[in-house]
Amino acid sequence: MQARNPRNNDSPLVAQVVSTGDEVLTGAVVDTNAAFIAERLLETGLRVTRHTTVGDDADRLRDLLAEIGDQADIAVVTGGLGPTVDDITAQAAAEAAGVSLAESPEALASIQAFFERFSRSMNPSDIKQAMLPVNASPIINHAGTAPGFQMDIGRCRFFFLPGVPREMEIMMTETVIPTIEKDHIPPRQRQHYREKRLSLFGLPEAEVNQRLIGPSRAFSDVKLGMLASFPVITVKLGAFGSDPETIDRRLESASEVVHNVLGEWIFSSTGETMEAAIAGLLKAKSATVAAAESCTGGLISDRLTNVPGSSDYFLLSAVTYANDAKIVILGVSPDTLDHYGAVSEQTAGEMAAGIRRIAGADYGIATSGIAGPSGGTDEKPVGTICAAVAGPDRTVSKRRALPFRDRYANKEIFAYLAMDLLRRELIQ
Amino acid sequence: MQARNPRNNDSPLVAQVVSTGDEVLTGAVVDTNAAFIAERLLETGLRVTRHTTVGDDADRLRDLLAEIGDQADIAVVTGGLGPTVDDITAQAAAEAAGVSLAESPEALASIQAFFERFSRSMNPSDIKQAMLPVNASPIINHAGTAPGFQMDIGRCRFFFLPGVPREMEIMMTETVIPTIEKDHIPPRQRQHYREKRLSLFGLPEAEVNQRLIGPSRAFSDVKLGMLASFPVITVKLGAFGSDPETIDRRLESASEVVHNVLGEWIFSSTGETMEAAIAGLLKAKSATVAAAESCTGGLISDRLTNVPGSSDYFLLSAVTYANDAKIVILGVSPDTLDHYGAVSEQTAGEMAAGIRRIAGADYGIATSGIAGPSGGTDEKPVGTICAAVAGPDRTVSKRRALPFRDRYANKEIFAYLAMDLLRRELIQ
Repeated sequence: MQARNPRNNDSPLVAQVVSTGDEVLTGAVVDTNAAFIAERLLETGLRVTRHTTVGDDADRLRDLLAEIGDQADIAVVTGGLGPTVDDITAQAAAEAAGVSLAESPEALASIQAFFERFSRSMNPSDIKQAMLPVNASPIINHAGTAPGFQMDIGRCRFFFLPGVPREMEIMMTETVIPTIEKDHIPPRQRQHYREKRLSLFGLPEAEVNQRLIGPSRAFSDVKLGMLASFPVITVKLGAFGSDPETIDRRLESASEVVHNVLGEWIFSSTGETMEAAIAGLLKAKSATVAAAESCTGGLISDRLTNVPGSSDYFLLSAVTYANDAKIVILGVSPDTLDHYGAVSEQTAGEMAAGIRRIAGADYGIATSGIAGPSGGTDEKPVGTICAAVAGPDRTVSKRRALPFRDRYANKEIFAYLAMDLLRRELIQ
Repeated sequence: MQARNPRNNDSPLVAQVVSTGDEVLTGAVVDTNAAFIAERLLETGLRVTRHTTVGDDADRLRDLLAEIGDQADIAVVTGGLGPTVDDITAQAAAEAAGVSLAESPEALASIQAFFERFSRSMNPSDIKQAMLPVNASPIINHAGTAPGFQMDIGRCRFFFLPGVPREMEIMMTETVIPTIEKDHIPPRQRQHYREKRLSLFGLPEAEVNQRLIGPSRAFSDVKLGMLASFPVITVKLGAFGSDPETIDRRLESASEVVHNVLGEWIFSSTGETMEAAIAGLLKAKSATVAAAESCTGGLISDRLTNVPGSSDYFLLSAVTYANDAKIVILGVSPDTLDHYGAVSEQTAGEMAAGIRRIAGADYGIATSGIAGPSGGTDEKPVGTICAAVAGPDRTVSKRRALPFRDRYANKEIFAYLAMDLLRRELIQ
């Protein structure tokens, strides 16, 4: 396909993002695609001006695409490429461009290849996904059945991608961004964008913000952003420039400033998850871990085993809701339970030591708490968590009373609290 | 303010939703306002056609408001009403309507009252929040400082609300919806919207679609939609009408048609989760459950304990990654492991029976499989899952080879496969 739109002036290209689907419009599904796409476009040096969501209505989508064709240089549209009657994007795009649909041999071949790879048979409705506007070029989808496509409507280059985030992300990274850089941005205008992400747990967002206000004046050439994804806060450092090495040096010194202020709470300097950070620390020590969970109900174990290769260091986990199970399986003393209760630093400590012993692991991690919505008392309200880690040298326990009443929020933050306790023991 | 827009035909009013703010546009903040507003408008009988997000740019917002003034009957706009320089919504609205801003005595009084109530002093910048377009009527904000306002731009009635969800929700419920019902929808046209959601697991989306195409012709007065949230597919039935009872009857008979075609796969007719459906079935039988997980790593246990009150029926879970743990903790026979391997229907069956016995539970649920990305063999590739359920009368095992290579996707679908096997045993 021919290069187009290379501009002679220095104003950035204007981009718009479109999400389609009744379920996104009505909020039944939270749209994470738009933010991902907007960030990638921003990093590429485009100005993102609008994000629009429309339902599964071909006429309204057609009208929107035609409007954007007059307003923007680049547009990325997600959703509506699947095999069902709701999937009307190709039709709407064809109408907006005033062209017809035709079966794309390239798109059909990629759909067939996908089905063959998994020895599944195609439904007649799957073939519909190969019907593209005649002036479109397919964008191959290696992770799913629905191909994407790119085409011009009005003065704008449109990229149409599936709504499945995993598929969209691969196609965005491997095809859309390289295509925009190659065909739409002249070489002398190409800017590099680099980002560094520092993830931390254990401080509220306002506190992180307050602590960074003064020190961040030291790096005015680096953009400071903050991303709160409960219960993790990610400090984003970003910078544009023509020379990648210079940008990296600026980011490195900004990162040092942040570390000086928040080092203790930072579990990752690369954007990796808490469980991936723990995996790295365990591997570096050739150490193993086992978990005994009560209130977190398996969430810690689920997270730790999300890391590929976790079977190397994750030995065993027991979810012991009932006191009996804590006694019989983990060897918690009935006296401890009687005297301090199930939700206590003592019980959590014995749970951690018990699972460490049974599994023959180097570290045992345990939680006992009240996730709610019911089960709280005056002394131990909903939101009370006792976490413990038993290691080769010592057992540490921690008790916190958190303000959340929501069961999911509590399970999540309880799990983080325990994992962070393990992380802190591993870096001792 | 005068009633306007009462229509003589029966087509529903067309509504649009707008969110403003750089942080929403770039996804730094997740926008939950739009979904709340869209749902309230839908329930009121309006047709929501678009949701648009723009950044803190007065010119672009002005252009958007003017466009919507030509397209919609009702629009709700959130954000940009605060005291800072970024807050440009009132200015943009005035420009779109071709009017000027003026201090609204009513708005100023409400801001002053808010500060007095909390014994706080007003900043000069707070007074800016009382500057409204001259043709606007303030909407008082009892939960915050920034008043909202309503006004006409083009043929559309706009409601401008603050972006703080709690404040927006109160103003939406107490003022916007009653105003729309009173001034914009004549009594005989007031429409109700009802929805029914049937959630199913175990069939691909294309297959569900294929099976519904024919039968759904029986209910042309009910809108059929589909929502795929991996690995669950939700069939949505929605209908508008003037009489709620008539709509419910139409939805009920459409639901029967869907049940006839897909009944075996449907785990919920109310939109509840798989784990909530299982909770209901266990409670109805006064039965208890325990889990032995290998490849799912605690995910089943995490899901089952997400249900409030799950401590009543969820007794114990063990995540046994290592073969040793399967033998020592669960009592799986070393011969079975030797002969059939860890990933086999036999091992999964013994794991289920073992955890059932140890926990003294009515049902044991177990998984063993290869989630990937590594660990696959020719005979048992990544994506192979063996799930088992041991009950009072029998143990059932199931083996599947799934096409996914992604560890998260596999854990998720493996967990569903096992939970669905339990569900099917519980309804025997």
